Amino acid sequence: GDAEEEDDTSLEDPWQDEEYFGSYGTLRLHLEMLSDKSRTEAYRQVILRNSASLRNKVVMDLGCGTGIISMFCAQLAQPSVVYAVEASSMAEYTRQLVKQNNCEEVVTVLQGRAEEIELPEQVDVLVSEWMGNCLLFEFMVESVLLVRDRWLRDGGVMWPSSAALTLVPCQADSYYAEKMAFWEQPYGLDFTPLQPLAQQEFFTKPKFSHLIEPNDCLTAPCDVIYLDMYTLQVKDLEEIKGQFHFCVEKSGVFHGFTAWFTVHFESLETGGATVELNTGPNSEPTHWKQTLFMLDRPISIYAGDSISGNIVLHRNPVWRRHMTVTLHWNINSATEETDNCQVGTKVFPMWR
Amino acid sequence: GDAEEEDDTSLEDPWQDEEYFGSYGTLRLHLEMLSDKSRTEAYRQVILRNSASLRNKVVMDLGCGTGIISMFCAQLAQPSVVYAVEASSMAEYTRQLVKQNNCEEVVTVLQGRAEEIELPEQVDVLVSEWMGNCLLFEFMVESVLLVRDRWLRDGGVMWPSSAALTLVPCQADSYYAEKMAFWEQPYGLDFTPLQPLAQQEFFTKPKFSHLIEPNDCLTAPCDVIYLDMYTLQVKDLEEIKGQFHFCVEKSGVFHGFTAWFTVHFESLETGGATVELNTGPNSEPTHWKQTLFMLDRPISIYAGDSISGNIVLHRNPVWRRHMTVTLHWNINSATEETDNCQVGTKVFPMWR
Ligand SMILES: [Ca+2]
Ligand SMILES: [Ca+2]
Repeated sequence: GDAEEEDDTSLEDPWQDEEYFGSYGTLRLHLEMLSDKSRTEAYRQVILRNSASLRNKVVMDLGCGTGIISMFCAQLAQPSVVYAVEASSMAEYTRQLVKQNNCEEVVTVLQGRAEEIELPEQVDVLVSEWMGNCLLFEFMVESVLLVRDRWLRDGGVMWPSSAALTLVPCQADSYYAEKMAFWEQPYGLDFTPLQPLAQQEFFTKPKFSHLIEPNDCLTAPCDVIYLDMYTLQVKDLEEIKGQFHFCVEKSGVFHGFTAWFTVHFESLETGGATVELNTGPNSEPTHWKQTLFMLDRPISIYAGDSISGNIVLHRNPVWRRHMTVTLHWNINSATEETDNCQVGTKVFPMWR
Repeated sequence: GDAEEEDDTSLEDPWQDEEYFGSYGTLRLHLEMLSDKSRTEAYRQVILRNSASLRNKVVMDLGCGTGIISMFCAQLAQPSVVYAVEASSMAEYTRQLVKQNNCEEVVTVLQGRAEEIELPEQVDVLVSEWMGNCLLFEFMVESVLLVRDRWLRDGGVMWPSSAALTLVPCQADSYYAEKMAFWEQPYGLDFTPLQPLAQQEFFTKPKFSHLIEPNDCLTAPCDVIYLDMYTLQVKDLEEIKGQFHFCVEKSGVFHGFTAWFTVHFESLETGGATVELNTGPNSEPTHWKQTLFMLDRPISIYAGDSISGNIVLHRNPVWRRHMTVTLHWNINSATEETDNCQVGTKVFPMWR
């Protein structure tokens, strides 16, 4: 298809907003998000379960896209007003949809970037679907934090209220076979000279939309990063670290790590039920699926081994929607006395 | 992912060669083509079945990519020489692969565009895999014709020797449901105001890599365009027309047309077996799959109706790797006397 026109890079907007909001001005991404039942149903459940408490509340739906969450609020609850904020040109259509669904008394569509929005009042609830691949990619979360600090009244509620990044060491047999083992003897020929190029092309960057099977997990997954949406600060986003210590349950081939995220929506009622949206392999698949980080060289591991180390999400200082993910790991065999271990580090650009 | 840097459009190369050959300098497309067993096996069968006649022949493999066809020639036959011509930076790797597979005595890798190649001699056989979506997209065929006229000796053989574009009126229930019907009542809301935008975004251009099920065909398919690779001239590529007359066998919903291509490789032996590569729904799937042309509005049709009309492939006068496909159709009901019929025309840009 056509590559978006990109202006000369030196002048380029470090937020690439033209490309970013441009893509949200077309239907493709909105259709993908709306067709994601577990994502959209989760937000619908949040509104439904908090319907009573939402009565007469002032709500903001930041990055409302087609306005689906705002219309859930208007149809499943009685907030006094929902400010549906959308920066892209989709906002024009959102207004039509709000009218078409008789929500115009409750839902007010505002077109503009989060930083420029002017509201007549503080809000009681700030709801947004800001999560990107690996939770933070594209950093829409920064806009959410800016709006929280500017417009959420003290004691107001954030939806989601918290977020966690989960990691697991994994096998990736079919991906490895397709992109690397393939070159060993295609049609009886020896194409191994292409393997260094294949490694650079297919394993340097993380693989988005990777669907991991539960039995590809070599250990129990582990939450490596936890974000409290009430206290998280924009400056914290520059570098976020997490530790892990995995115990290998079954022997296999350690091809890399897979990551996904989970978010929680606390109840407006103290003690009320929390709603969870989990994008991991043991939950209904979502449009995010999972993200695969391939090691340069797969490593055989045995039940009883441990894989410990840390993960660092380092925000790109120039391209503000991008980051690098650095993984340090060391593998210790079950018999602790031997101090020999295998250590590795890999830095994954996401994307620049 | 990253969009290739595109220079300012006014200066832009009408052949977009930087983008075109740039994409062939990476492994992605080559892996896709090599992983396409029916495509690659077809070429291997051609060499195998013509092995005896290839003895001492001079062969050119135009756009050889990783050089797989040239190495088939060297390993499965005894040509005197194979000129493996590749314009992209993949040529450097092709040389390593030729050496790695002990073919360097027979296969000579030449990096350069077809128009600039200099050979020490004419060739007996010109083999190439030039087919794009809808047979002609990206118009690599022009390079093949230029090289044929410059380097193929009189009486030399073209592989493929002929090509046909096939068309069928079809149902596309799931595509229509996903992109258009979805907006009728997602989550109980009415998103029909987005349908005009959906039609413009998802139905204006043909859908590449569409996998049609045999029972989505509303009629028997019909070859609408036939190209003889010995007599086809570059100027013929500006506009290629074909007629069709389909008899509807079963009632259904006429969502659009699906197109695919078939190529034939004649034998070097008079009377020898021809090898066919068919990319249609009744053959093994290939990386091309098929191409879907959606009507703006689906039309119900009944057994006994006929759909006749024509297809025009019109090459883009500026962007030389692009074209438009125009479909004119009229639907006549079985009972001939009634002269009422439904007529339609749609112009599909591919891509510009
Ligand atoms: Ca998102
Ligand atoms: Ca091709």
